[in-house]
Amino acid sequence: MLSTMQDVPLLISRILTHGSTIHGSSQVITWTGEGEPQRRSFAEIGGRAARLAHALRDDLGVRDDDRVATLMWNNAEHVEAYYAIPAMGAILHTLNLRLPPEQLVWIVNHAADRVVVANGSLLPLLAPLLPHLKTIEHVVVSGPGDRSLLDGASVQVHEYEDLIADKPDSYDWPELDERQAAAMCYTSGTTGDPKGVIYSHRSIYLHSMQVNMAQSMGLTDADTSLVVVPQFHVNAWGLPHAMFMTGVNVLMPDRFLQPAPLAEMIESQRPTHAAAVPTIWQGLLAELKAKPRDVSSLTQVTIGGSACPPALMKAFDELGMRVCHAWGMTETSPLGTIARPPAQVVGTDEEFAYRLTQGRFPASVEARLTGPGGERLPWDGESAGELEVRGPWIAGAYYGGQGAEVLRPADKFSEDGWLKTGDVGTISPDGFLTLTDRAKDVIKSGGEWISSVDLENALMAHPDVAEAAVVAVPDDKWGERPLATVVLKEGAGVDFESLRSFLAGEGKIAKWQLPERWTIIESVPKTSVGKFDKKVLRRQYAAGELDVTQL
Amino acid sequence: MLSTMQDVPLLISRILTHGSTIHGSSQVITWTGEGEPQRRSFAEIGGRAARLAHALRDDLGVRDDDRVATLMWNNAEHVEAYYAIPAMGAILHTLNLRLPPEQLVWIVNHAADRVVVANGSLLPLLAPLLPHLKTIEHVVVSGPGDRSLLDGASVQVHEYEDLIADKPDSYDWPELDERQAAAMCYTSGTTGDPKGVIYSHRSIYLHSMQVNMAQSMGLTDADTSLVVVPQFHVNAWGLPHAMFMTGVNVLMPDRFLQPAPLAEMIESQRPTHAAAVPTIWQGLLAELKAKPRDVSSLTQVTIGGSACPPALMKAFDELGMRVCHAWGMTETSPLGTIARPPAQVVGTDEEFAYRLTQGRFPASVEARLTGPGGERLPWDGESAGELEVRGPWIAGAYYGGQGAEVLRPADKFSEDGWLKTGDVGTISPDGFLTLTDRAKDVIKSGGEWISSVDLENALMAHPDVAEAAVVAVPDDKWGERPLATVVLKEGAGVDFESLRSFLAGEGKIAKWQLPERWTIIESVPKTSVGKFDKKVLRRQYAAGELDVTQL
Repeated sequence: MLSTMQDVPLLISRILTHGSTIHGSSQVITWTGEGEPQRRSFAEIGGRAARLAHALRDDLGVRDDDRVATLMWNNAEHVEAYYAIPAMGAILHTLNLRLPPEQLVWIVNHAADRVVVANGSLLPLLAPLLPHLKTIEHVVVSGPGDRSLLDGASVQVHEYEDLIADKPDSYDWPELDERQAAAMCYTSGTTGDPKGVIYSHRSIYLHSMQVNMAQSMGLTDADTSLVVVPQFHVNAWGLPHAMFMTGVNVLMPDRFLQPAPLAEMIESQRPTHAAAVPTIWQGLLAELKAKPRDVSSLTQVTIGGSACPPALMKAFDELGMRVCHAWGMTETSPLGTIARPPAQVVGTDEEFAYRLTQGRFPASVEARLTGPGGERLPWDGESAGELEVRGPWIAGAYYGGQGAEVLRPADKFSEDGWLKTGDVGTISPDGFLTLTDRAKDVIKSGGEWISSVDLENALMAHPDVAEAAVVAVPDDKWGERPLATVVLKEGAGVDFESLRSFLAGEGKIAKWQLPERWTIIESVPKTSVGKFDKKVLRRQYAAGELDVTQL
Repeated sequence: MLSTMQDVPLLISRILTHGSTIHGSSQVITWTGEGEPQRRSFAEIGGRAARLAHALRDDLGVRDDDRVATLMWNNAEHVEAYYAIPAMGAILHTLNLRLPPEQLVWIVNHAADRVVVANGSLLPLLAPLLPHLKTIEHVVVSGPGDRSLLDGASVQVHEYEDLIADKPDSYDWPELDERQAAAMCYTSGTTGDPKGVIYSHRSIYLHSMQVNMAQSMGLTDADTSLVVVPQFHVNAWGLPHAMFMTGVNVLMPDRFLQPAPLAEMIESQRPTHAAAVPTIWQGLLAELKAKPRDVSSLTQVTIGGSACPPALMKAFDELGMRVCHAWGMTETSPLGTIARPPAQVVGTDEEFAYRLTQGRFPASVEARLTGPGGERLPWDGESAGELEVRGPWIAGAYYGGQGAEVLRPADKFSEDGWLKTGDVGTISPDGFLTLTDRAKDVIKSGGEWISSVDLENALMAHPDVAEAAVVAVPDDKWGERPLATVVLKEGAGVDFESLRSFLAGEGKIAKWQLPERWTIIESVPKTSVGKFDKKVLRRQYAAGELDVTQL
């Protein structure tokens, strides 16, 4: 029997209309690098988003399902595009401006974007790609930058402000199916082609509600949030959407992501919340040490992307900024967990340990751990398995490309439709996730898993070790065993037996997990974003290029 | 184009599973009137809800869409029923134990309830009704009370604890359609038959998320909420559902709703939040004046059902309890608005005025005002019209009865599907609702509306007036005009001309709104819940029973 409730779809146009009327006086503040920042009220953003939608439809011929890409920093115009494009029924495709040019080309062609809205400051990146972008018909340019870079391009070039100048301030947003595509984002996987994740109106709407729950970020119109995490990075963790739902003021850094301007905008604009990856905060901390600023307004900092080192978390605590871990990925919209400690440990010694976990799952994210043999593992805080998740804002497939079926690779999606995250970790009985490794890096030894990260952290605690990477290598008896590759500090001369004893000492590492294979290397190979590139080490081992000692 | 998100329904079973695992140590605390209260963890509630579902299915034969009624106070067993019944696919029907017996009979028969779960203390109410309840096959009794009252009843009688004793602690909850009926509640309209509103899994899930947003009640597992508003009253404003989503501890008063035990449970259990209608708080305030208690834990009080008088709000402010108005109705699940003042007025003189409004609409509730001629009115804080709302937790129809079509009476639902609330008010440009009258009481004079409530409040400010009720009466020229019925204070002898001048004085009431027709009455007729019964006055006027003076 059906209910007697109204059948009202969850749409992005509703968030926009709500934010630009009921919270019409809240602001999007964009840093300009000189003088006063640009201030635009939510009411103005609403009017300008309507004008942009008219322009896209009437002047550029954008229709349902057309992909409109953005190549933009975090700023008010990017927020306008965030709303106008999905609200009118088209699909917002945020381009990651940090990707290698050939990946950007592949992604734009795969998504078959018809339009790209770009910041003028990013034309040096965009212009050389244009000859390779097969489906782009229009480039809309916003903000400062040399337009002459587009001279001779075989696309139509439009000036953002001119395009929207004489359009109506309101738009009769269509009543869409809430499951319809609203936005897309490609993963920057280090192996294979990038994979497109397509968010729906429903998934973005529900995710926004979750972000606003007191248990998650819980901001209100009394807050201003400094959104450092890029809008091309999983929709800036959903913040631009969430904030129109509750009138949270938004402070956007545009291209000024260096520590000094960040410190300056915190001091002058007094945000209460900020969101960014740890490396940004590491830089900010150094800047504040070198040149103290009044950052007292900023009491809540959401950190995701990778774990926040404990020392960094403590340093921010001392500054009065409380760091809160969150975990997620492109495929999870991204809110998967958030590390608000349970009330009963607040103020106790346990609290800090809880804050170092990846956090707790919200009601809409179901989680399970799968062991090496495919078995379900208990939430006991000890059994480590691959994390699988399910929920209304979790991907169940990848975009296959226009006219193609969606992709459901078996290593990414279970037969019953759960997302295999590729992350290995434990879950405590009260639902806190602790990630210990990536599934591709974990060592599968005799039906048990050994965390490469645990071994690396234990090794790097040795005073003679500068860096260490542990990778799985084939083993006749156990299937796989760990190979320890070690970078020694200058002048250090420790032997492998001592390192092995060090690992075993004080029960740090279980005996059966201790590596037999050891090698000294000059430096650990790194990916373009600075992570250990273990593929290279595995390849070097396989090719016999490493000088390995067997203990 | 559809998204690549998982298609996961929003189900009550998910809220239960989440609450009873991730927030398993949070508690439902039920007052017992003597000694320590009953404490049950969310984990225990989860296990017992599963056992109840097994019992209902296996022992009582409850199947999909079967209605299972509850006649219960707020307590842990009622929470178990809240989850077990919808999660298994059946429909929870909460019975309002304050209704006249004949209405209860009508409602149970209309809903065709098969089972009723009742508190033992309510058997004196239930037993005499049973012979008239045509569809009830089973009565399940929980808690103290004389079972012999059911002797000879032609239904099967079960003891709640016996029924669930040997059942499994887990249940394989079915994957339902999220639009399926989950719970039902009948309005206790003063005119016509009660109307059944059927909530869906989706509507309850979304409403729970909204309740948990920082902008709404925004509670976390650090909170304990005293839920005075009955569970049979619009699902206790959605609190039992919302709290399993975030681990908020729940303090349930059972049948101990008198001021003294309420003060005692606040002092001993230290809730941080409470929810109730104003009359309960009025009584509590008097109790605290007579016998002070330590109520310092209770800092947030949500008041709905009717407006909180300013004096009561101020008195609670002085006690450190901050009252927050909310507005809703059975048809709105109920959260329609909540009066959190905008950040920019907090700490200013304007703040209190904002708190006296009904509050601001959340993103999921669209609102519009319709004027006397059916025209849309602006949100200018001045134009008064009937409030119409739309959203995923707003009713679009009433239950027609088994096998019958749903009901969409034209006075309750607009042609385009919005709910006509029957409330008349204004909306400010920033979305704050101020209710001024009920649509049925407003006076439609020459195409304009006159608020009966405004006239009454202005009249009651006169020192000689004890009470005053203003009703619409037919008028040849204007359609309707106001009739002022006045109860004078003992010994007072003011004449109507003076009262009319008093109303006109200092611009209190516009000249064209001043009543021409006046009468003195001995007391204003009241409904069973103490509201002015204007039907009676209109009938008396029509029958010529009132001695009316025309000025």
